[in-house]
Amino acid sequence: MRVPVELRRSVRLLNHGPTTLITASAGGRTNVMAAAWVMALDFNPPKIAAVVAEGTFTRELIDASGEFTVSLPTLALLDATYTVGECSGRDVDKFATYGLQTTPGSVVSAPLVEGCVGWLECRVLSEPGPQQRYDLFVAEVVAAWADDEVFVEGDWRFTRDEHRTVHHLSRGVFFTTGQRVQARRLP
Amino acid sequence: MRVPVELRRSVRLLNHGPTTLITASAGGRTNVMAAAWVMALDFNPPKIAAVVAEGTFTRELIDASGEFTVSLPTLALLDATYTVGECSGRDVDKFATYGLQTTPGSVVSAPLVEGCVGWLECRVLSEPGPQQRYDLFVAEVVAAWADDEVFVEGDWRFTRDEHRTVHHLSRGVFFTTGQRVQARRLP
Repeated sequence: MRVPVELRRSVRLLNHGPTTLITASAGGRTNVMAAAWVMALDFNPPKIAAVVAEGTFTRELIDASGEFTVSLPTLALLDATYTVGECSGRDVDKFATYGLQTTPGSVVSAPLVEGCVGWLECRVLSEPGPQQRYDLFVAEVVAAWADDEVFVEGDWRFTRDEHRTVHHLSRGVFFTTGQRVQARRLP
Repeated sequence: MRVPVELRRSVRLLNHGPTTLITASAGGRTNVMAAAWVMALDFNPPKIAAVVAEGTFTRELIDASGEFTVSLPTLALLDATYTVGECSGRDVDKFATYGLQTTPGSVVSAPLVEGCVGWLECRVLSEPGPQQRYDLFVAEVVAAWADDEVFVEGDWRFTRDEHRTVHHLSRGVFFTTGQRVQARRLP
């Protein structure tokens, strides 16, 4: 079940470096893209950084709305995740074509992708230089959600492989999030 | 064996979101810190983004030198990775105390951490606004290296668990890089 995540813990969803799905909506149009270049930037207030290339449809919708969402897909969504990163929403309705269901965001106009295990609703902070020079967006997280079967008390609990988040290398090769290990502090 | 990685492929080392070690040197002093908030920003010329908090010793050395390296630690270095993220180089020589060996960078002043499986030598690009507002650095990759037993022709080949890269969640909980999966493009 999708449950709220405390904002001060929300960027923890990104700490392990999963590949994400970014959605944006403007003027009645909505799109989704795959994005591996997304990371946490600050805990409180929570902020993230994300690269969204100029010329993409999602970029156009983010520029128009100032908002986007980040959803964390799982192994079960592997092929859809890869595919929506390989085509343009100007050519195809990616949601209908590839079977991605959405649910409305609570605060922002962009929807959340169903079947994912974590979600961040984000508002762009104005950084025109980095946006123009590097396609780099800085955004504040204004709402966050997680699947309470998989993210429990701020901690990932991958009890089923199909719930594992995924990490893109290149050309459709991904790694799932692997074995959980506890480091100890050296004396 | 540590071998060069083509620059145009170098940021691929970060695509899957591993936790990293950042080193910097200035004025005869050198330090290392753990950094999970590091991501690729562009392929060619290769650029990355990294968060290095104000007030840290590593930040002081980066500000003074304009350079740093990113090394990718493995499961074998788990405890050392966690530990150097939990103490300050102002209080302790982290390399000597925690047994981290280094080798000089080829282009930048900061060293590479031995036992890692990928390395990026980076020069900071001047972005004073994001640095000041978000501790966010943009840097160009000027040299890159990988362990040719683990990163082969631009592709991770984790044949031994102790070679797997690691992904920090919080408080010393990490995930190793898991199962390799090949996505297919949906029709």
